[in-house]
Amino acid sequence: MIFQTFTEQQLRSFTEAVFLKMGCSDTHARLAADVLLKSDLRGIDSHGVARLSGYVRLWEKKRINSRPDIKIVHQTATTATVDGDAGLGLVVAPFAMELAIEKAKVYGSGWVSVRNSNHFGIAGYHSLMAVENDMIGISMTNASPLVAPTYSSERLLGTNPMCYAFPAGAYPPVVVDMATAAAANGKLEIAQRADLPIPEGWVQNKQGHSSTNAHELKNGGSLLPLGSDKDHGSHKGYGLGATVDILSAVLSGANYGPWVPPFVAFLEPPSDPVGEGIGHFLGAMRVDGFRPAAEFKTHLDNWIARFKSSGTIDPSKKVIIPGEPEYLSEQQRREKGIPLIDAVVKDLNELAQKLGSHTLS
Amino acid sequence: MIFQTFTEQQLRSFTEAVFLKMGCSDTHARLAADVLLKSDLRGIDSHGVARLSGYVRLWEKKRINSRPDIKIVHQTATTATVDGDAGLGLVVAPFAMELAIEKAKVYGSGWVSVRNSNHFGIAGYHSLMAVENDMIGISMTNASPLVAPTYSSERLLGTNPMCYAFPAGAYPPVVVDMATAAAANGKLEIAQRADLPIPEGWVQNKQGHSSTNAHELKNGGSLLPLGSDKDHGSHKGYGLGATVDILSAVLSGANYGPWVPPFVAFLEPPSDPVGEGIGHFLGAMRVDGFRPAAEFKTHLDNWIARFKSSGTIDPSKKVIIPGEPEYLSEQQRREKGIPLIDAVVKDLNELAQKLGSHTLS
Repeated sequence: MIFQTFTEQQLRSFTEAVFLKMGCSDTHARLAADVLLKSDLRGIDSHGVARLSGYVRLWEKKRINSRPDIKIVHQTATTATVDGDAGLGLVVAPFAMELAIEKAKVYGSGWVSVRNSNHFGIAGYHSLMAVENDMIGISMTNASPLVAPTYSSERLLGTNPMCYAFPAGAYPPVVVDMATAAAANGKLEIAQRADLPIPEGWVQNKQGHSSTNAHELKNGGSLLPLGSDKDHGSHKGYGLGATVDILSAVLSGANYGPWVPPFVAFLEPPSDPVGEGIGHFLGAMRVDGFRPAAEFKTHLDNWIARFKSSGTIDPSKKVIIPGEPEYLSEQQRREKGIPLIDAVVKDLNELAQKLGSHTLS
Repeated sequence: MIFQTFTEQQLRSFTEAVFLKMGCSDTHARLAADVLLKSDLRGIDSHGVARLSGYVRLWEKKRINSRPDIKIVHQTATTATVDGDAGLGLVVAPFAMELAIEKAKVYGSGWVSVRNSNHFGIAGYHSLMAVENDMIGISMTNASPLVAPTYSSERLLGTNPMCYAFPAGAYPPVVVDMATAAAANGKLEIAQRADLPIPEGWVQNKQGHSSTNAHELKNGGSLLPLGSDKDHGSHKGYGLGATVDILSAVLSGANYGPWVPPFVAFLEPPSDPVGEGIGHFLGAMRVDGFRPAAEFKTHLDNWIARFKSSGTIDPSKKVIIPGEPEYLSEQQRREKGIPLIDAVVKDLNELAQKLGSHTLS
């Protein structure tokens, strides 16, 4: 695999320019680029600028509205439902989290369910907005159906990620940001490119039998929930995916389950929608709504220190604090740049040429 | 295995009498019995009256206070921290959930972190209190350390359950109530009694190697997080267990991680506590804080109907809606009684004799 490395600023101005060409406002272009760059900086390459052309294709199909009128359609003091007007999830979700944070500032907590949105990038971005305000941040989203519930041969749930982020003191924030499937689709794609078998427990074939074929999804197979099989708790992964789906979509009026529209432009959304677009759920709770923030951070630092110094099975593999590898990647990539594989660079440059924007190199 | 079957009322009055002998108030005895009975009714035998003598032993050791002065020690409009005064979690957690519900009635949502408590029974009981008010109920608790984080050879987390419950319309509530370990300790105990090997992926031995020995925990082994190993997402189960620990204890001022006091009376709590007792986290959100409750229920019914009618791998195994088996058990056991194994009946009768309470049969 050949890489080229770019500075954060190079990729940021490139990405902003593409969003501007899509017709986004200056503010939205800057924000959407910030969400994608955060993903690349944090080492989550599957959710960063590599997805840019995916968003553009959905806009070309008029499934993404680059000039959304994002609105609060229902609210109480600490809850709200937001209609994203088919906008980029990259701008709709931050709008909703900002609202949750404003409510939390006044009342201690804020909770916003979102409908009529699109892919929101990494969940961690949104949760970290709350952390910057000394709040606990919660974010989740549903996604197009790829995962079969326990005992099912059908794809009924997305990889439906959930994220919880907590502000620490001396240490970086604890960020639990996870798909509720056993293996992320990105891992499958790596095996597909290398034409390698995958471990049992990641996917099942069309009939619902265990498979080690990385291409099984193309043949009607499904991803498996976290837990992989009933004996190992796949009903729990299914339950978590269901929780994300209900909070994000049944609560907001978005599409849920098998009705969630696909992220890829070459697949059409279901013709019998049960709601609007995809759904998210965002929450913020002030730490000092429970105990003084400094006290919380001192104890979270103690928690982190204890887990980091845990006895290990293999001396070369330390216990990892959730969010720590992403934080280290961010420090490193800010300084040394962001590597992109050649296929992504080529795709981005073709995109720029098509839109009349500047190329990367 | 020999069973005896008792009516709900028989077990309820027996259990209330035991709590009264412990010195609980009438109200607390009734409530604590109700939590345990709900577990037996719902078919979660490991968390019902079978645990009664465990609570009594902790009270005998003065680690449970039967006359607690449960207090709100910190609060905002929608958040609070409650000190359980070393009371039964069976009464402390409902106090906290009641507070969350009262806050939600006024402000849309309510969130309560609890310290200085004890084992709270099934998480589902507390979440269902919110559901009865047309709210979404969330409950979690930390527990004594049995689970090793990914790459660790140490027990640093409890089986730390999390529960999300949602009110449906025509169907029973959706209740996702799950330990964040791959397998519940109860399943291990069944294999121990039968002296049978367990599947790989449930436990590791003292050195951190995979084991199929059901007795491994007695030899210094650990339960594994949901996901079982790194390839299958054990870091996600670890992240969920960590989330429960932080929300329940780092936020409230309870003990966390390896400092959580054991439920069993024959093991002493750590001599260097980092907080008070064990911790819980309870939340309630009004459904109509997001959309009209009837609309939500109609769509949740549609969600349930679609999942129930899913194509299946094995025609004899339908897709299960989270909470459905427990609901069916409750209907059946209310009518036909609750079966207890002889060993439990014997243990309960010995307990009654010791306390001078009436026996079961």
